[in-house]
Amino acid sequence: MSTSGLNMSRRIRRTPYTDRVEAAGVRGFSVVNHMLLPKAFRPSVEQDYWHLREHVQIWDVSCQRQVQIQGPDAARLVQWMTPRNIGKARVGQCMYVPIVDADAGLINDPVLLKLAEDRFWLSIADSDLLLFAKGLAIGAGMDVRVTEPDVSPLAVQGPRAEELLASLFGEQVRAIGFFRFGWVDFQGTRQLIARSGYSRQGGFEIYLDDSALGSALWDAVWQAGEAFNIAPGCPNLIERIEGGLFSYGNEMTRENNPLEIGLGKYCTLDGSIDYIGREALQRIARAGAQREIRGIVFDGGACPPCGKPWPVMAGDTQIGQITSAAWSPRLKRNVGLSLIERGYQRAGQSVTVHSSEGTARPGEVSDLPFD
Amino acid sequence: MSTSGLNMSRRIRRTPYTDRVEAAGVRGFSVVNHMLLPKAFRPSVEQDYWHLREHVQIWDVSCQRQVQIQGPDAARLVQWMTPRNIGKARVGQCMYVPIVDADAGLINDPVLLKLAEDRFWLSIADSDLLLFAKGLAIGAGMDVRVTEPDVSPLAVQGPRAEELLASLFGEQVRAIGFFRFGWVDFQGTRQLIARSGYSRQGGFEIYLDDSALGSALWDAVWQAGEAFNIAPGCPNLIERIEGGLFSYGNEMTRENNPLEIGLGKYCTLDGSIDYIGREALQRIARAGAQREIRGIVFDGGACPPCGKPWPVMAGDTQIGQITSAAWSPRLKRNVGLSLIERGYQRAGQSVTVHSSEGTARPGEVSDLPFD
Repeated sequence: MSTSGLNMSRRIRRTPYTDRVEAAGVRGFSVVNHMLLPKAFRPSVEQDYWHLREHVQIWDVSCQRQVQIQGPDAARLVQWMTPRNIGKARVGQCMYVPIVDADAGLINDPVLLKLAEDRFWLSIADSDLLLFAKGLAIGAGMDVRVTEPDVSPLAVQGPRAEELLASLFGEQVRAIGFFRFGWVDFQGTRQLIARSGYSRQGGFEIYLDDSALGSALWDAVWQAGEAFNIAPGCPNLIERIEGGLFSYGNEMTRENNPLEIGLGKYCTLDGSIDYIGREALQRIARAGAQREIRGIVFDGGACPPCGKPWPVMAGDTQIGQITSAAWSPRLKRNVGLSLIERGYQRAGQSVTVHSSEGTARPGEVSDLPFD
Repeated sequence: MSTSGLNMSRRIRRTPYTDRVEAAGVRGFSVVNHMLLPKAFRPSVEQDYWHLREHVQIWDVSCQRQVQIQGPDAARLVQWMTPRNIGKARVGQCMYVPIVDADAGLINDPVLLKLAEDRFWLSIADSDLLLFAKGLAIGAGMDVRVTEPDVSPLAVQGPRAEELLASLFGEQVRAIGFFRFGWVDFQGTRQLIARSGYSRQGGFEIYLDDSALGSALWDAVWQAGEAFNIAPGCPNLIERIEGGLFSYGNEMTRENNPLEIGLGKYCTLDGSIDYIGREALQRIARAGAQREIRGIVFDGGACPPCGKPWPVMAGDTQIGQITSAAWSPRLKRNVGLSLIERGYQRAGQSVTVHSSEGTARPGEVSDLPFD
């Protein structure tokens, strides 16, 4: 057993940065896409949170694996996989694309990167979307190659990320727009860099395309970052809940459709494009989603980690379940995310939250994001 | 963070038995199929090992999720997914079925359970085979439903498993043959029980088909087991390596084909059935697999956990890499599993193993299983 208590094996893959992450004093890991994701560095997630909001952090998010779809039928396959119209996407653009099955159940919610007219990456959340894409391509006899390239994103997040990366790669980094990507030189190689990341504090993700350069890239970012008070970090539970960033597997599973998760704006429902799950999604849209995601603020002191969903009650009626929660040191209340039944979704709706230690905590429904 | 050091969230699913597993003093978890798998109970994996060989253990293997394939095209889809001929499988039979992609790369190595002529479960290793099956079915327009039922296997493993389960469910349990399944009554429900499991010590797996009965089933097995010196357990690293049981993600990945992993006996290569990857597999068979899995015994004191592969050298030539290893208290040597290059595969071949602490440990190639 490792010091983190998570049993290590080859099956739970290390990343090109894991050596550096361990040297930086990581305090625990999670597992995403069969790969290690650091979960904390400082003594508390709250200290990581304040640092992220004020300075800049380096994050090993290699677990955001890329599903590369390449070939004459690539654009057709990608469009078939998502309700979002990708027809207007340009090369150099990122796009958040919910992926659903034939019942409109969410399978993944990746970011699409359009590398060429016939080459795409899907930067995935925690499910083997590669296998879905392979199955579709084989089943339909499409002329595409579906692979997992040796690409391991390193995120630089926080208000000083742009300054840091401009000092390292040059001023052209500043010209990259939100959810756009460009290219930088690193040790004689060309690497993709996008203005994106799983926080609301701004920043970039470097899609390192060669594992062997992992430590060198980490070290280069770290050295350039010393002038900006850089620290090691990772997606921060408090920050992402406050910012209304959802997590596949937590806020949404195959049991949920995009309309419940507030992703209706990404769903083309007018019949102008064809995709898997269209009929199911149109049917749900006509009836109206029975539940929708909302914030919950609640009291009773700092809540424990939400390892299993906590019932949200309005009187004696269960109207939802909190799937992620944390104490917000800024709001001085707990914040959580929950699907909420129709009729109870208005901000201010009184609720009680039954967290795992058994007490009923008073709270209310909130709009998202919290801040 | 939990006491185990693995950060808990809904995304890493608890099982119907996790409450009991925690009460029984679990010392760590791994994550398989987005679900908790206990990794140790006693102070050492070695103590768990001796108990498993001599008595009987109860294992939470809920992470062996079922992919249910049901409908008029179910048998056709299942056969398409595996090189193994399932034509002769009868209802009530289990079958180990490697699953490969179009390049003959291993995607999963589940156990198939034939529940009816038009209904199958694939009891999976650690990859989302559900998404591959869904993709194939959608892509090819097959008339099947692909779902993950609420089924959570509880294994009872060890030499006294049959006695225990006969005392709990009745003598008919004894009549179930190896890799066959039958049905038992539990609290007015009908539950599937198979003579199978991820050890070489004999035993059964109960495919509990209702999460709500998890604690009740655990308690019933535990109570009946007290007469047989039952203990909580889990797949045991030492026992499975000694027994030559491979682990998807460790010994095999998409980079490997079944012929390398000794699964040629399950592959129909004569063209009599059609399945995904057939041409690639026939091509590999004609050329002969470049590497094949072997055991390695090696010295230098008890080895550390194998978190990343260890090079296996013959002189200055790397001929393999160990992907799982453990100290065998019975053989008083370390045992490991490695693909080995052609020309070096004979038992007795001298090697050195470069484990993670950097020392070169002398050893030799061994046939499998070790005992």
